Amino acid sequence: MAKIPTRITVIGYGNVGKGVCEAVNRNEDMRLVGIISRRGADDVRRAAGSMQAFSDVAIFSPKNFMNPSNQVRLNEITDVAILCGGSKQDLFSKEDDPNRYKGQGPFYAQFFNTVDSFDTHSRIPDYFSVIDEIADKFGHVSVISAGWDPGTFSLERVLANAFVPGSKNYTFWGPGVSQGHSDAVRRIPGVRDARQYTLPVDDAIRQVRAGKNPELKAGQKHTRLVYVVLENNDPKERERVKAEIVGMPNYFTGYNTEVRFISEGEMRGDHSAYPHGGFVLTSGNTGRGNKALIEYRNEWASNPEATASILVACARACYRLRQEKRSGAFTMLDIPAAYLSPQSRETLLKEWM
Amino acid sequence: MAKIPTRITVIGYGNVGKGVCEAVNRNEDMRLVGIISRRGADDVRRAAGSMQAFSDVAIFSPKNFMNPSNQVRLNEITDVAILCGGSKQDLFSKEDDPNRYKGQGPFYAQFFNTVDSFDTHSRIPDYFSVIDEIADKFGHVSVISAGWDPGTFSLERVLANAFVPGSKNYTFWGPGVSQGHSDAVRRIPGVRDARQYTLPVDDAIRQVRAGKNPELKAGQKHTRLVYVVLENNDPKERERVKAEIVGMPNYFTGYNTEVRFISEGEMRGDHSAYPHGGFVLTSGNTGRGNKALIEYRNEWASNPEATASILVACARACYRLRQEKRSGAFTMLDIPAAYLSPQSRETLLKEWM
Repeated sequence: MAKIPTRITVIGYGNVGKGVCEAVNRNEDMRLVGIISRRGADDVRRAAGSMQAFSDVAIFSPKNFMNPSNQVRLNEITDVAILCGGSKQDLFSKEDDPNRYKGQGPFYAQFFNTVDSFDTHSRIPDYFSVIDEIADKFGHVSVISAGWDPGTFSLERVLANAFVPGSKNYTFWGPGVSQGHSDAVRRIPGVRDARQYTLPVDDAIRQVRAGKNPELKAGQKHTRLVYVVLENNDPKERERVKAEIVGMPNYFTGYNTEVRFISEGEMRGDHSAYPHGGFVLTSGNTGRGNKALIEYRNEWASNPEATASILVACARACYRLRQEKRSGAFTMLDIPAAYLSPQSRETLLKEWM
Repeated sequence: MAKIPTRITVIGYGNVGKGVCEAVNRNEDMRLVGIISRRGADDVRRAAGSMQAFSDVAIFSPKNFMNPSNQVRLNEITDVAILCGGSKQDLFSKEDDPNRYKGQGPFYAQFFNTVDSFDTHSRIPDYFSVIDEIADKFGHVSVISAGWDPGTFSLERVLANAFVPGSKNYTFWGPGVSQGHSDAVRRIPGVRDARQYTLPVDDAIRQVRAGKNPELKAGQKHTRLVYVVLENNDPKERERVKAEIVGMPNYFTGYNTEVRFISEGEMRGDHSAYPHGGFVLTSGNTGRGNKALIEYRNEWASNPEATASILVACARACYRLRQEKRSGAFTMLDIPAAYLSPQSRETLLKEWM
C-alpha cells in the first residue's frame, strides 16, 4: 500500500460526489483535499451534515476556481480530480462550432489528472478524442467513462469476447434506478424531480440463459419506467414532459417507456433509495463446439455509491499512470487490475492470484 | 485487428496444447507455427487426427530443440511460445540447491516470449521472481499463471476488492474436473489414468449468497473426488496410491478427499469429458452500509480448452507488451483488457464500452 495517500478533489457534490467522499474514507491510501461545487462552501458543509464537516478540505465554487491563485492552490494539493457531474450537460457539451467543445471534462483536464463517469455510450469515441488531446497537451492522465456501465461491464464484455472469440454478448440492467436517465429527465424544464427504473425483460433473460443466443434489440431486453414530480402538475404540462422524455435521443428512444406522474411526498416516501444492478452474459464455444458461458453480475443497494467506489479505484490507477509519465485519455480497458488495487505487488502475487 | 498474425509455438501437446491449437484457429489474428512435444513429429500428427495435419508447422522434440540451429530457426518464426505443461513437474521443478531452478518455464523464457498456466498458487511468488529475472535478462515478456484460476478468477478477486474495499471474497470451484489435480495424480508411479472432480459444498454457497459472510476454510468449501485407474490394481497398491493422493501438499492436504479405483473401460465410458466451472463472489458495503454484491461465474464444457482459450488471448497481450519493449514476468493482473482483445482501439471505444 502507498505510504503517501493519493489526494483527491471532488468536482460536483451531488449523489455521486457525496459517494466519492464516502468511498475516499473507505480507502486508507486516499485523502479528500478539495471540493468544487456550485453550492459553495457553506452549502456543501450543510449538505454533508454539519458545518464542521470537511474542515481540512479546500472548498470552491466554480466561480472562485476561475481565480488563478485558487487554481494554483488547488492544483498543488491535488493528485487526481474526480468529476461527478452528469454526462448530458455537465461533462461534455458541444457548441454550434463543431471544432469547439466545452464542459467540465475538457475544462478540468487542463488543470488536473481527472476521472469521470461519462456514460453516453454513443458519444464516448468523440469525448475520448477531445479529452485525449487536452490531457496530453497539459501533461495529465484522464480516465474517462469509469463506473459500472460503461466501466466494469465494458471490461467484462471485452474480456469475455477475448476469451471466447465469436461468442454472443448480452448486457441486462436492473431492476434499478438509472442515475444518468433520472438526471436527464430532471434537466427537462418544469420537472422538479424524477426517478427512472430500468427493468429487464424476463423472457429475454430466459432465452439467453437457455443458450438460445437470440437476436435482441435494446428495447426488447429492457423497459423503462419513469416517476416524475412536476413543478406544475397540469394535463398539458404532463403531455409536454412525457413527449420530451419518450423522445429523448440516446436515453429513451427505442425503448418501451412508461411515465407516471406522482407527488413530491410519494417520491420521498417510495423512491428514496437508488438500488441498481445488472449482468453481462457471454455465451459461445471453445474448440470444436464445447459450450462456454461467462456471467458477471452485480447488485448495489446504492447505485451512486457504486459508481463513486469505482471512480475512486480508478483515481488510484490514474495517479499511478501519471507517475509513469503517461498522459492523455484512458478507459478502464486500458488499466491493469493491479493499478486499481491498493494491494502491493507482493501481496497480489502471494494472496490474490 | 493486427494485419500480421501473431505467430504461436505450442510447447507440450497434451489436452491444453491441443486446445491451444484449436483456439489459435478461432482467432483470425493468430497463426500456429511450431510445436515442441516429447511425442515427436509423427506422433503429434497422428494425435492431431491425420499425418497431414500441421503440414506448415515446425515440430520438434525437446531433444531436437537442443540443437542450436533448430533453436535459431524456431525462434525466428515464433512471436510467443505457449507452455502447456503441467505445473507440478513440467513448468517449475526445484533442485536441491535452493538457488537453482529448472523446468520448462525458466528454460523456455531464455528463447521466447512465453505464456503459461502455472497454477500452484502457493509457489506463484517464487515462480514469478525466477521467470522475471530470466525473461528480463533475455529481453522477453513472460505471462505466467494465466487461465481461469489462477487467471481470470484472480483478476475478478482483485477488481471486486478494489471496487468494494473491506469486502469478503469467496471462490468456489466445480462441479468439474480439475486438470491440474488430475495431472498431479497421474504423475504418481503406478497410476495409469486419473480424474479429479472438485465439488462445491452446497451449504457453504447458501451461506455466502445469503450475505452471512461466513469464515470458511478451503476444505469447508469443497470436497475432492478422485477416480483412479492403476497399472496394477491390488489392495496394497490401492493403499499406497490413496495415501500418496490424500497427503499430496498444495493439492489434497486439508480437503475431504475420496478416492475410487475404477477400470480403464469405466474411465473411458464415464469420465471422458473435462467440464469445469466456478464462481468468485464478493460481498461487502459501500458508503455508510449499503450492500454490494459482485458475482463472476463461468461454465466450461471443456476445461483444457477454456485454459487454452485464455492462454491464447494472453499471447496476444504478451506480444503487444514486447512490442512496447517491456520485459520480465507479468500476470493477468498486469495486463489491460484492451491488450487481450483482438478489437482495435476505435472499435473498443465505439462498440464495446
